[in-house]
Amino acid sequence: MIDDISVTPLKRIQHDKGDIYHAMKSSEDSFSSFGEAYFSSVNFADVKGWKKHSKMILNLIVPIGAVRFVAYDDRISSKTYQQFFDITISKENYCRLTIPHGLWLAFQGVGREFNLLLNIASIEHDPNESVSCELGDIKYNWDSM
Amino acid sequence: MIDDISVTPLKRIQHDKGDIYHAMKSSEDSFSSFGEAYFSSVNFADVKGWKKHSKMILNLIVPIGAVRFVAYDDRISSKTYQQFFDITISKENYCRLTIPHGLWLAFQGVGREFNLLLNIASIEHDPNESVSCELGDIKYNWDSM
Repeated sequence: MIDDISVTPLKRIQHDKGDIYHAMKSSEDSFSSFGEAYFSSVNFADVKGWKKHSKMILNLIVPIGAVRFVAYDDRISSKTYQQFFDITISKENYCRLTIPHGLWLAFQGVGREFNLLLNIASIEHDPNESVSCELGDIKYNWDSM
Repeated sequence: MIDDISVTPLKRIQHDKGDIYHAMKSSEDSFSSFGEAYFSSVNFADVKGWKKHSKMILNLIVPIGAVRFVAYDDRISSKTYQQFFDITISKENYCRLTIPHGLWLAFQGVGREFNLLLNIASIEHDPNESVSCELGDIKYNWDSM
């Protein structure tokens, strides 16, 4: 596990008329602040990334389909320098992934139908606090879904 | 329109690998505070409700399927006393519905497949700040979807 990433199992409450799925409470340890919530969909096998934030902390939940997240640590002083962290989350493996700022992140659609993530971000979107690079700039085997 | 309810159109940003859907920014007028975010699904034709919160402000977004929300105003001093407000939101009519505390709310699954709402609530879930009643206790024609 890369330092500072956390994976928090979330409750799914069964209900005859339709289940309830927890996402995040402000009292939880991995909550820092609320800046913005948005959804991002990702088509089967497509990969969005890489992107690295300098301020935003991401809280990622997948209510539909399945999404594979890969984080890469290029923080020279980190104990997990040059390590990758690879996790697939979905309704079946229902948890929240918290990604600190300073890590590279890319994500891939795993479900053949609709894949959707919710990001509960600590700050609002600001194009000046993130950097992007091409997928091939950080080598990773995306074929082994 | 019932007093204090607001409907905010939301952006959907097209992307070749999967679209992005706005939900809520902390700088927006209809944002008050972040207490909790959770999802609730509702099966086709089923209705969940009625429930009235004494503190929680609800911000409702529907990223999948379609959900019909009906609010009922029993606030004696309200200009819209005894009025109903009925709206169906979906990816096609993509907007955020803000429901103040003090109104009754029920919601129905309209899509034949998966219907999902996200509530970005102003406070955390607290069973002591809401009251519920049976669906039939507030008469409404739910058949006319």
